[in-house]
Amino acid sequence: MKIKITNSAKKPALKIVYGINSTNMSSEALELHSKLKGKIEIVPKLEAKNKKLLSLLYTPGVAEPCLEISKGRGLYDYTMKGNSVAVVSDGSAVLGLGNIGAEAAIPVMEGKAVLFRQFAGINAFPICIKTQDPDKIVEIVENIAPVFGGINIEDIAAPRCFDIEKRLQNLGIPVVHDDQHATAIVTLAALINASKVLGRSMDSMKVVVNGAGAAGSAIARFLLCFGDDKSRICRNVKDVIVCDSKGAIYRGREGLDPYKKELAELTNRGNFKGMLGNALEGADVFIGVSKGNILKKESVAGMAEDPIVFAMANPVPEIMPKDALEAGAKIVATGRSDYPNQVNNVLAFPGVFRGLLDSRAERITNDMKIAAAIALAGTLKRPKATEILPTVFDRNVVKNISKAIKDCA
Amino acid sequence: MKIKITNSAKKPALKIVYGINSTNMSSEALELHSKLKGKIEIVPKLEAKNKKLLSLLYTPGVAEPCLEISKGRGLYDYTMKGNSVAVVSDGSAVLGLGNIGAEAAIPVMEGKAVLFRQFAGINAFPICIKTQDPDKIVEIVENIAPVFGGINIEDIAAPRCFDIEKRLQNLGIPVVHDDQHATAIVTLAALINASKVLGRSMDSMKVVVNGAGAAGSAIARFLLCFGDDKSRICRNVKDVIVCDSKGAIYRGREGLDPYKKELAELTNRGNFKGMLGNALEGADVFIGVSKGNILKKESVAGMAEDPIVFAMANPVPEIMPKDALEAGAKIVATGRSDYPNQVNNVLAFPGVFRGLLDSRAERITNDMKIAAAIALAGTLKRPKATEILPTVFDRNVVKNISKAIKDCA
Repeated sequence: MKIKITNSAKKPALKIVYGINSTNMSSEALELHSKLKGKIEIVPKLEAKNKKLLSLLYTPGVAEPCLEISKGRGLYDYTMKGNSVAVVSDGSAVLGLGNIGAEAAIPVMEGKAVLFRQFAGINAFPICIKTQDPDKIVEIVENIAPVFGGINIEDIAAPRCFDIEKRLQNLGIPVVHDDQHATAIVTLAALINASKVLGRSMDSMKVVVNGAGAAGSAIARFLLCFGDDKSRICRNVKDVIVCDSKGAIYRGREGLDPYKKELAELTNRGNFKGMLGNALEGADVFIGVSKGNILKKESVAGMAEDPIVFAMANPVPEIMPKDALEAGAKIVATGRSDYPNQVNNVLAFPGVFRGLLDSRAERITNDMKIAAAIALAGTLKRPKATEILPTVFDRNVVKNISKAIKDCA
Repeated sequence: MKIKITNSAKKPALKIVYGINSTNMSSEALELHSKLKGKIEIVPKLEAKNKKLLSLLYTPGVAEPCLEISKGRGLYDYTMKGNSVAVVSDGSAVLGLGNIGAEAAIPVMEGKAVLFRQFAGINAFPICIKTQDPDKIVEIVENIAPVFGGINIEDIAAPRCFDIEKRLQNLGIPVVHDDQHATAIVTLAALINASKVLGRSMDSMKVVVNGAGAAGSAIARFLLCFGDDKSRICRNVKDVIVCDSKGAIYRGREGLDPYKKELAELTNRGNFKGMLGNALEGADVFIGVSKGNILKKESVAGMAEDPIVFAMANPVPEIMPKDALEAGAKIVATGRSDYPNQVNNVLAFPGVFRGLLDSRAERITNDMKIAAAIALAGTLKRPKATEILPTVFDRNVVKNISKAIKDCA
């Protein structure tokens, strides 16, 4: 059943900047997926090679661990639970592709499982759910939880994702919406190092987040670390203004859903009302988790001196790095692997879940996320303007993040 | 993450007859399970070893297969679906242990996944469901189906299992309750070869099945192959009487559930009323899928000449082989690996699912099951009284069964 990858996938990386319509990338990705027919496989740790092993691994021997577990003993000792994560999606917000459904989401969830295993040794399995009804998703996750030690919620649209995650927090195993928390952790780590490079203190910064979906909302909350005493490193970010397509979110704005209403209470101290361009006047940091090409050079030019621009929309950033730099940005990050400073979830979720599983934490806490961000930032000893984050291939990333989580737990 | 198995599991098979209270078996099984901490692992077929591969297996490349699938193309080409099976249980009827729940069922489902992969190269994953409400189980299976090419229903108690299986038949992928169909296939194969050994024709046989749960009911229906024209080999089994703990199931018996009522219509032509011992008078075949030690030597002695006794209760058979032989049985089979003629589901389910997946069948049919039983019986060229079935380690078993299923599909 081994798949031999002989041609395109093993070729050295081509000198092509893959964009949204890159034919090379598209055809190579399709070719590779079609060759693999599934990116993960499920294999025995030990085969039942003879009668004796068959009797121990299956009947009648298997009855013993079953009986022990039925008496409340050894669930984590005798089963895969302690090292298994479900990657759960309803396919309603897949990458930048939108609501493409559970089946079309499978390749992403398989890819996630590849990375879980490769970077953190975790057995992750795609649970792609047909229904998009939050009540049913919650019920399904609760009911299939027994075999898993953690749940990674993935690519579920806001605001349903907030509700689903919240309602699953008492499951007894950590339930983490990756698009919120991993993104927030990596963004904070990037901002910590960007501040270090520029020799600036985060507590003097004015931050504008554009995009009020899962990622934007989580980033804003996280930067403010509201009500959390231990989080000194970021609690004093002066102010965060969150914008959506209608401009700044402020207290009293008409038609806000309950989640944006809550966000209005936590952010935008001055209750600024206006569009993104105005919000950015004098801002130190732009964090975009919205749509491609929506940030004008003029807006960047109107920011405070030497501003930080994280244009993380995928695959097309809010502003192209070249334009942002021309407009005066000192540090630019994107979500892409073909520019410097890739803000990529892969930097966070393997280490986060490794730490959560190893410590048998029942849920992720704000302190853990802050510790993870600090650990991730600290993995890079000497950050530079064009290198504010370590690469995903740096083995210390998972090691440091998981240790930070465990120390918190 | 590789687990090194160095001691007990690799020792040569001990000369011990493992019984229900065998301390050796128990402690070895616990030790092995505790060492493995999960019998399966999920691994990438190809690691994202560099930026290029990361871009192809994950973002941005992964968007391409996602988009294709969202347009209705390539679901089986670009994902694991075509070779994945869910092993679904609510833990309500695990082995002979009864209703021990979803968590305690995990070791069995993991064991099943080991065998799926080892014998048939199939990626199987345990879905252990907390609820035992049939409506919810049906809903959950429907909703998590996207990533799977087949569903193996396992260890769900009768009569709920019948209902659940029936309601899932239009899912578009085969949904097979193993305890019914794999057991029935292996039992028919065993009976075909037992008849061959004794030089008797099955159409003259009177069969008594003891146990009217998932297995007993499926065996009885299967032996009669009701209403199926192609199934000449077994359609003329003269009569099958099914007994439960209250004796023979007959038309008009008080308090029968709808499934037993249907069984009463299909079986027991003479509408015999009485207990097992009487039902067996003059019978050619006893098939037990009930409880240990419930078949008396006298009852076997009262059967027709040279009877066939399949005492398949696990781990303690309805009658011990020695006693059955002393009472006149000519061929004795059990569910155990430590006696000759083990009737074991493992002989059927890997080949059955291999065939179903390879042919993309939407459901299993009666014809397929009959073809599978004939193929399994035929795998053993020269059956003997003490060898009516091939061993599970015979590679031709999966090959022949899957071919038979594919030829039918």
